[in-house]
Amino acid sequence: MDLSFERIFHPRRVAVAGVSTDGFGFGRGILLSLLEMGFEGELFPVNPRGGEIKGLKIYPAIEDIPGEIDFAVIAVAAEAVPETLAACRRKGAAGAEILSSGFRETGTEKGAALEEAVRVEAARGIRVIGPNCFGIYCPKSGLTMLPGPDLSRETGPVAFVSQSGGHAIDLAFLGKAVGIRFSKMISFGNGVDLRETELLKYLTTDPETGVIAMYLEGVTDGDAFFRALDEATRKKPVVIYKGGLSEAGQRAVASHTASMGGQALIWESILRQAGAVQTASMDELAGACLALSLLPRRPYRGVTVVGGGGALGVAACDTAEAYGLQLPPLTGEIFEAVQAVLPKPGSSAANPIDIANPYVPPQTLEKALTAAGQDERVDIQIMVPLLYHFKALAAMLGLPSIKEATPYEAMAEAGARAAAATGKPVCAVLPNPRRTLADLDVEVILREARDSFLKRGIPVFSSLAEAFSAVRHAARAARRLEGHPD
Amino acid sequence: MDLSFERIFHPRRVAVAGVSTDGFGFGRGILLSLLEMGFEGELFPVNPRGGEIKGLKIYPAIEDIPGEIDFAVIAVAAEAVPETLAACRRKGAAGAEILSSGFRETGTEKGAALEEAVRVEAARGIRVIGPNCFGIYCPKSGLTMLPGPDLSRETGPVAFVSQSGGHAIDLAFLGKAVGIRFSKMISFGNGVDLRETELLKYLTTDPETGVIAMYLEGVTDGDAFFRALDEATRKKPVVIYKGGLSEAGQRAVASHTASMGGQALIWESILRQAGAVQTASMDELAGACLALSLLPRRPYRGVTVVGGGGALGVAACDTAEAYGLQLPPLTGEIFEAVQAVLPKPGSSAANPIDIANPYVPPQTLEKALTAAGQDERVDIQIMVPLLYHFKALAAMLGLPSIKEATPYEAMAEAGARAAAATGKPVCAVLPNPRRTLADLDVEVILREARDSFLKRGIPVFSSLAEAFSAVRHAARAARRLEGHPD
Repeated sequence: MDLSFERIFHPRRVAVAGVSTDGFGFGRGILLSLLEMGFEGELFPVNPRGGEIKGLKIYPAIEDIPGEIDFAVIAVAAEAVPETLAACRRKGAAGAEILSSGFRETGTEKGAALEEAVRVEAARGIRVIGPNCFGIYCPKSGLTMLPGPDLSRETGPVAFVSQSGGHAIDLAFLGKAVGIRFSKMISFGNGVDLRETELLKYLTTDPETGVIAMYLEGVTDGDAFFRALDEATRKKPVVIYKGGLSEAGQRAVASHTASMGGQALIWESILRQAGAVQTASMDELAGACLALSLLPRRPYRGVTVVGGGGALGVAACDTAEAYGLQLPPLTGEIFEAVQAVLPKPGSSAANPIDIANPYVPPQTLEKALTAAGQDERVDIQIMVPLLYHFKALAAMLGLPSIKEATPYEAMAEAGARAAAATGKPVCAVLPNPRRTLADLDVEVILREARDSFLKRGIPVFSSLAEAFSAVRHAARAARRLEGHPD
Repeated sequence: MDLSFERIFHPRRVAVAGVSTDGFGFGRGILLSLLEMGFEGELFPVNPRGGEIKGLKIYPAIEDIPGEIDFAVIAVAAEAVPETLAACRRKGAAGAEILSSGFRETGTEKGAALEEAVRVEAARGIRVIGPNCFGIYCPKSGLTMLPGPDLSRETGPVAFVSQSGGHAIDLAFLGKAVGIRFSKMISFGNGVDLRETELLKYLTTDPETGVIAMYLEGVTDGDAFFRALDEATRKKPVVIYKGGLSEAGQRAVASHTASMGGQALIWESILRQAGAVQTASMDELAGACLALSLLPRRPYRGVTVVGGGGALGVAACDTAEAYGLQLPPLTGEIFEAVQAVLPKPGSSAANPIDIANPYVPPQTLEKALTAAGQDERVDIQIMVPLLYHFKALAAMLGLPSIKEATPYEAMAEAGARAAAATGKPVCAVLPNPRRTLADLDVEVILREARDSFLKRGIPVFSSLAEAFSAVRHAARAARRLEGHPD
């Protein structure tokens, strides 16, 4: 493996250039964030004015740092970036991330010239991430991106490469909440040096990475990228959200990261040929990453949906069809076994399995899932407890709060037991509809419940559509890894 | 107007049949809910065992109630429903809602026979809502549906007719939070008597109703329904979500409300011809209702999006195109006026207007919206403050909490002032991504901010896609009301 990547993602000595002692500039922000994340190495803040911050000496210049550095975070004004980068190279840094903007994305000659100067400097022997980016997040070393003081330090299988800093930080926070854990995340912005193709190749061989996700606005060398992609998808699932596929989107891409966009149909067919999973939004990408992190790699096709309420079942069927999944109607002995555990009247054992009211007892849930999982056409099961209804139940039963009325731990346990008994994974959908401030207790229960499910390895989605989409993507990736043509 | 509808929605004397003194049966639940809602009339609980509940005498039978009744809520076992309904008719009730299930939806001969008995009884002179339904919610009179003890008592323009009780109660709660206010809501379940066509006709003439929304699984008389629909959409917008359009969905519909489904393409073309707004989910229906409640009736086409972050702009363009809206690129004087107020570098005044970071100062927002609104191609503007980022800002600034860092009141005011100055409405998108329990403060801010925007008549959506979809639906309804063919 290229040792410079090791020094970039797990650096021991890091310079942060452009740290002011107050205000909220990027340099100070990222330094405080690194401290809060508990970054494992040494930090050397740099600013011509000198001084001290959080007990760390601020060096007037990169040159003043004692000894070598492995990596640098550069947050100085665009004009000063090329010389700062040169100083970092002379200090032995393997790489630097440039958070500053003011380069080619401005559409000015001056910006373009500055970016060219950075490119020339990089070619002399220092790898560059950026400029106009949010940098690197690596939970293992404690490197964090802008503005990430409280990202997770737990490592996981998902790597994310992003041309947008906003999408990167949003996914990092979302992942923390919904259970997506990362090996490393790279926001590369204008991508003057390191970008999609080289990062994809590196992550394909990275043993810490099991799933590669990418947000792209454009690629610099289409042929090279698609060769690397075709190679990567044979080893690991690669999930791609390509932004700027519309006409107006291409215009926006140009002013955002100065990339060339590309036509929707061409991208779609090329990504498909190369075996990638394509998504139409960041939420969809996140769902696919969650499923690929937690579910066994299988070509899922048949699904059951278990929940309370007939209209939910109708929506389940309509949605499944839209996502190319099947809800095989249960019949014969299996139908009867499911029907035997359901309350009457109002329930339905046909699949979707309708438990007739939103207060699904965990035991009923476990029995229904265990019975339905015997059907050989069923590959995966989705339970839909409508937890927000339990507030009304608590009120009706005179219980002190929604917490006492909501058996979410037992529900999660029921799902885990049914999955173990049948060998078919179980997912949960916990819809999280908007509510008033008076219903903040419902939000608390939903978040606690999500953690209970995740603790047992059960992925939680917020809608059936999201769950179906994620399962379909996981199935597609599995077929690719098994060597099936799409 | 049919006086029986007046007595059904605003009854003064209401019997509730099937009220037990404890447990959580439907009868007890709806009685307690009616008390909590502050129902304006008199309530007469009924149960053969007698007794007392919340200071109200429980009558052994409908016949024992002194004097006439206007309306009845029936929650007794299916077998006892026909005779209870007959007793209500003899007591002078104009109508009754039957919450009990155990009828045609069971697929049994017994269920079908009981439903037929209800139909025969209804034909003798009492209007029936249900069976197998959640009943009526009417904020003005305080009638509430199951299980709704804490629905809003504020009246508004939207009427909702639903074949699903679950969808109805979910929309009632969602509406309370996001600012959709209702004239009346009717969950009609199996719809043995009153159902889609007659309710649609009534609501078309109802002066309290300005927007009609419907969730349908099937219709009993297609010709009559579409004639009524064609008539209705010339007077008021009608928004319809038709469930069960897939093959599997039709199967689920059969076991849910025993309706016949129908093919997707046929429904789509017929709804379009009749001038209705068709949605593909309840969330989409809710978005359309919100826009139709708060926005002036105009044929919106050109949109600006104002927010922080370039990738947001890219997504905005891609999404707008998918929804048939246009993001006209600003040029000339207007472009320069917007550019003059934006911070540099990293911003873009082209539309989407990128304020370059998520911490959009309200004054900048107001100036940008006011300048962009001068463009004659712009019909409506959407601002996207990413409030969840303000937690990091609070930390960076050393502020005690996210509340001190987040100027949501001033943002809402900025939007309202720009709308007043330009005559072009402003919407807000407040994305509400999933977060951990530690970020519950972010959720609080989001809900407070939503209320601030709503107080100023600014609809709040949770994604750009939702906003664009709602605006497109509002535009379509406006064109229909102006008499344009679609």
